[in-house]
Amino acid sequence: MSDLFSLPVQKIAENIKDGKLTSVDICRSYIERINKFEKDVKAWVHFDEKLLLEKASESDNHRRSGKTTGPLHGVPVALKDIIGTYDMPTECGTVLRKGKTQSQNAEIVDLLKSAGAIIMGKTATSELAYLGPPKTRNPHDYTRTPGGSSSGSAAVVAAHMAPLAIGSQTGGSIIRPASYCGVVGYKPSYGLISRNGVLRTSYNLDHIGVFGKTVEDVALLAKVLIKKDKYDPATVYYSADNMLEACKKEPLFDPRFIFYKTDSWKKVDKKSREAFEYFIKSFKKNIEIFDVPSYFKNINKYHQIIHETDLANNFQEYYKKAKKKLSKEMQSAISRGLKYSSKEYAEALDFIKRSYESYNEVFEDYHGVLSPCSTGVADKGLKSTGSADFNKFWSFMGVPAISLPLLQGENNLPLGIQLVGDKYDDLRFLGVARWLEKRSKEFNE
Amino acid sequence: MSDLFSLPVQKIAENIKDGKLTSVDICRSYIERINKFEKDVKAWVHFDEKLLLEKASESDNHRRSGKTTGPLHGVPVALKDIIGTYDMPTECGTVLRKGKTQSQNAEIVDLLKSAGAIIMGKTATSELAYLGPPKTRNPHDYTRTPGGSSSGSAAVVAAHMAPLAIGSQTGGSIIRPASYCGVVGYKPSYGLISRNGVLRTSYNLDHIGVFGKTVEDVALLAKVLIKKDKYDPATVYYSADNMLEACKKEPLFDPRFIFYKTDSWKKVDKKSREAFEYFIKSFKKNIEIFDVPSYFKNINKYHQIIHETDLANNFQEYYKKAKKKLSKEMQSAISRGLKYSSKEYAEALDFIKRSYESYNEVFEDYHGVLSPCSTGVADKGLKSTGSADFNKFWSFMGVPAISLPLLQGENNLPLGIQLVGDKYDDLRFLGVARWLEKRSKEFNE
Repeated sequence: MSDLFSLPVQKIAENIKDGKLTSVDICRSYIERINKFEKDVKAWVHFDEKLLLEKASESDNHRRSGKTTGPLHGVPVALKDIIGTYDMPTECGTVLRKGKTQSQNAEIVDLLKSAGAIIMGKTATSELAYLGPPKTRNPHDYTRTPGGSSSGSAAVVAAHMAPLAIGSQTGGSIIRPASYCGVVGYKPSYGLISRNGVLRTSYNLDHIGVFGKTVEDVALLAKVLIKKDKYDPATVYYSADNMLEACKKEPLFDPRFIFYKTDSWKKVDKKSREAFEYFIKSFKKNIEIFDVPSYFKNINKYHQIIHETDLANNFQEYYKKAKKKLSKEMQSAISRGLKYSSKEYAEALDFIKRSYESYNEVFEDYHGVLSPCSTGVADKGLKSTGSADFNKFWSFMGVPAISLPLLQGENNLPLGIQLVGDKYDDLRFLGVARWLEKRSKEFNE
Repeated sequence: MSDLFSLPVQKIAENIKDGKLTSVDICRSYIERINKFEKDVKAWVHFDEKLLLEKASESDNHRRSGKTTGPLHGVPVALKDIIGTYDMPTECGTVLRKGKTQSQNAEIVDLLKSAGAIIMGKTATSELAYLGPPKTRNPHDYTRTPGGSSSGSAAVVAAHMAPLAIGSQTGGSIIRPASYCGVVGYKPSYGLISRNGVLRTSYNLDHIGVFGKTVEDVALLAKVLIKKDKYDPATVYYSADNMLEACKKEPLFDPRFIFYKTDSWKKVDKKSREAFEYFIKSFKKNIEIFDVPSYFKNINKYHQIIHETDLANNFQEYYKKAKKKLSKEMQSAISRGLKYSSKEYAEALDFIKRSYESYNEVFEDYHGVLSPCSTGVADKGLKSTGSADFNKFWSFMGVPAISLPLLQGENNLPLGIQLVGDKYDDLRFLGVARWLEKRSKEFNE
């Protein structure tokens, strides 16, 4: 089963459907990896081998009975531990929720089940999906952070402990760990995936996203999660049925990109900068380098006002009753969040719309924006999950972003390149991402 | 032409299309009324008789040439003077904008023109669509307020100085003046009509709405205004093409209503309360009286936090540079708006969603909510435009509301009854409104 880890998930699903593979066999392969690597990577906070094999066996029996199967039938998927599940705890990375279970599944858990997926377990998250790091280590170098806050979800995919995982992003919590761990991380447009039943940190900034090995894998997973949900009023009606096909189709145009080095470029380590320059050179016909537009410089400030106010609102009970059990980072964020004025908050919300109105003009002439995912490869040590400086713009405007593991930085550690698209243009966007992934691999062959 | 004022607008438009009436004749009839009543009602802030007749004549020539005509071809429509027009001033009821003209038309002005409507002129509004009253008097009793802030738009329709008018509502600025003036005022669901090019007072609370003589008339006008507009991100894709037909169709069910007297019921004058009680009795098979749900009591507070913060943000330049030229009401609202915390504002925004989640359960068993439009008939004097206590709930939640002029209060002055529906259910909602209007008239025959 060693080939399993290089198979596209669609192929795994087809093999299950055709009876060439069983879900039990697949789960056993991942369990083997978990038994080997989890003691070092520490990516799981809830994993029950016996339960998983039971579910896999049920799934196989279901298929053998000839009943209808979904596009992920028998495929195991890992969930960031802020996603509510009624049959496993949802601890959100804080001692304040130790052992707590939700009374019902999050909407996306039900969507996964409808698609036939098997919930493998829950992965480690930073404290309340903010900064306080979990114990997880980077599978490529145990002395380094895997990034956060979706630390475990990125790490399990990187270490072949799961084929697919779900995470979330409010600042840079998908793109950054994907880059550090060398996997694909995709944050769809704001409003495509329901947050109903998932820990809320910020209504206007929280996004659900996905991790996989390739653009195709994340497209397959994302499409089963995209659905209007009346219990998350931010969700929109969106036709994602053809997401996988759209991503596999060669674009009918020669894609043109803007590369934004941004003001944080100087913080990127030297080896990583060289890798980006090499990448830009390889695609010189397609890429133009621009300075970031002037409105970008206000985004981080406004992102902070919204994020910290919302943390203060959503975690006020914890702050009032058990302040000392929160990390220092969370305590300071909340204390700042309590000091902004309503006028600043309203201005910040308005800036989401205003900045997007400027941003989307890019797509009159270009098919995507490129930028680093992070200030380089994974930072040393586990005390910080790294900087989200390259990610907040896009979370703020709610536009689709994907981390593609196409480069290497110092010590040959993985380094992602970030592609950003236009809001609600996710199908074309994934097609362009797939094109970049394919061409880039061709260059390196 | 005296019959003109009792013809449905659809019929007027058909007669124009068939050449039985000309737009010039119709405009002359309204000009006659304006010349007779405007000196007392003072509803217009910009009206140019010559320009109107020129436009009407052009419109007639266009039709005679056999070119395509829209559903409102040749029909004059009045605009609240906060709606931007490039060929007339847009003064927004404040000396600070005296004589100021916009560089382009509001989106809805272009939609009206595409539908063939003729922009008649601009109607008086309270200062910046808030509380400071204009000079307009109630056409039914010149010693009384017409309500506000869409004072002129309600008054011109009531006095037969225009067949249709457009207004806006942030608290109760359509429903209340419609009730006081004895016309139909309809505020569609939040997000159906673009506010692009219209004075912004509060992004989350501002609604465009319409005035006419009957439910059919407002349905016809509203349907040409409903369109997704990328420059107003709150707008949604919505299919309103059949709005007029939907409203004219007899419901396939026997409508059931909840009547909410609300906590403000005790403020309603005695005669008006009797009129409501009589109405409830006449529809006793269809109406059940309930206490308002407990979450209602927080809405006014949260509405105020959002509204005043947004006023502080949107009018900060006026406040900084010309504070004394603002009304006392506006000055105090802005000074309060500067004092709320971001946490309160975020809580208030969140409550929009939370209150709606509770509210919409009503529609599992009922087809509409009924309530007074106001604390009774129009108040005496012109210093206040009356209370919006019965209107803020619905503006806050963004649900459709309509004022139906079916009752009379003290001194036989008009008294509207307010019907409220479910969000985005506007087509069925107008059908139910039409049913109420029709049955109510049958009872009184």
